[in-house]
Amino acid sequence: MNINKDSLAPIGVFDSGVGGLTVAREIIRQLPNEKIVYFGDTARVPYGSKSKENIIRYSRQIIRFLKSKNVKAIVVACNTASAIALEEIRDEIDIPIIGVVKPGAKVAAANTKNKRVGIIATEATINSNIYTNVIHENDKDITVFGKACPLFVPLVEEGLLEDSVTDEIAKRYLEELKTKDIDTLILGCTHYPLIRKTVGRIIGDNVNLVNPAYETALSLKELLIEKGIAAGDEHQYENEMYEFYVSDIAEKFKKFANSIMPFNIDYIHQINIEEY
Amino acid sequence: MNINKDSLAPIGVFDSGVGGLTVAREIIRQLPNEKIVYFGDTARVPYGSKSKENIIRYSRQIIRFLKSKNVKAIVVACNTASAIALEEIRDEIDIPIIGVVKPGAKVAAANTKNKRVGIIATEATINSNIYTNVIHENDKDITVFGKACPLFVPLVEEGLLEDSVTDEIAKRYLEELKTKDIDTLILGCTHYPLIRKTVGRIIGDNVNLVNPAYETALSLKELLIEKGIAAGDEHQYENEMYEFYVSDIAEKFKKFANSIMPFNIDYIHQINIEEY
Repeated sequence: MNINKDSLAPIGVFDSGVGGLTVAREIIRQLPNEKIVYFGDTARVPYGSKSKENIIRYSRQIIRFLKSKNVKAIVVACNTASAIALEEIRDEIDIPIIGVVKPGAKVAAANTKNKRVGIIATEATINSNIYTNVIHENDKDITVFGKACPLFVPLVEEGLLEDSVTDEIAKRYLEELKTKDIDTLILGCTHYPLIRKTVGRIIGDNVNLVNPAYETALSLKELLIEKGIAAGDEHQYENEMYEFYVSDIAEKFKKFANSIMPFNIDYIHQINIEEY
Repeated sequence: MNINKDSLAPIGVFDSGVGGLTVAREIIRQLPNEKIVYFGDTARVPYGSKSKENIIRYSRQIIRFLKSKNVKAIVVACNTASAIALEEIRDEIDIPIIGVVKPGAKVAAANTKNKRVGIIATEATINSNIYTNVIHENDKDITVFGKACPLFVPLVEEGLLEDSVTDEIAKRYLEELKTKDIDTLILGCTHYPLIRKTVGRIIGDNVNLVNPAYETALSLKELLIEKGIAAGDEHQYENEMYEFYVSDIAEKFKKFANSIMPFNIDYIHQINIEEY
């Protein structure tokens, strides 16, 4: 059998901070043989309230960093960067790159029965209209209702995953969406799967929640196979398989990461991303 | 009369974002003849969870920018930057520079009767122990109790100034401090004066709240007089007196600024702070 040497290279995964770990977690679950180099831009988080110009510049720097780690493919595990930067930078790089928006939007478009889809995300993602545009590429008869939920990220990062305050804020954010008769709701920010129980309870059982992290891992799997660069099933140890980098202090990242990953992360590297 | 030409130059005021506007507001109130050049680092906000190294680098860049605007003095209107960067960079510049920490700490030390002072702030400010250290420089017999309140900034920026959710979060954050028998509480983050009513109601009438913004404007006034560079009372129009700069999109800043400033800000300049 002819093994492509690239198949042994890692997948680069990046996010503005810790949220993309929910995507890394899905990749680990669905593609257990793949190595991962994760970068969290903790010095410049959050992206959700920043300009297009800056988000594109940040994404370019991170891609240069990940390429210095010889990754074979890149996952933009950040809805904001996927929404704002991905199409701009796709042609600049010579390895496969996928974001979280398209896989999530595609599944939502395929699954809705009544053609009414909701999307909750950061302000930048909502204002970009990216989910609406991609859903319409799949089916232009679908009506999309977007709602920015800026407090969800700080609430998740404060660890209030099952909490009366998160409940109250979610009720306010989802109040209007509940009147729109949607049957599908996209969790359009990588932090949100961590409060999917709360969101699900409030939006109601009749609404199907779409987690783009899950769909992205699935798309990545197909892409690696299609390109002939999927890893084989040689056994490898976890601490050799996953590397974590951040652009600012690692402590908060480590605590959060260890609370959501299926194993403990012992070491997190700090780098100066402005040098890339 | 011999007028120092510097007296006509503006005061440079900077913060990680919008919070420092509460300090600018106090300066406008107490020093109505002074011009202000305000810079909000909205591309890199928040500072509260970032490393010392980065906060110092950001502060140096901003000081270079403000000096390019020929300011006669600089106010670090950010508790985190005052706590982390001010002592490091003070000797590097040739104009007067003051932060918000010392004026606030000094007044708290002078006002406490039972020598038990509380301080609420971001994680970086609390972890720096700066307020405790400065209070002890004034009176080493004072016991200081610190509490980080990371959700206060996003709640204020979401506009929930008088809200049941802010109440609930404040109750949790202040619960332990309430058992410490403090008679003085420092609002150690420039956003917090905007929720001082909530904080005051929960911590109780017997606790005196210290707003470092107020004390800082007072210290600035004394400093300008001492250096002989205070502005005279020539009448000037508001739109010539105050300039606002940010490092990322101006819209959110503008909305927030107009909600707390005593006049409407029509134009906000966006600059690339990484170039300084």
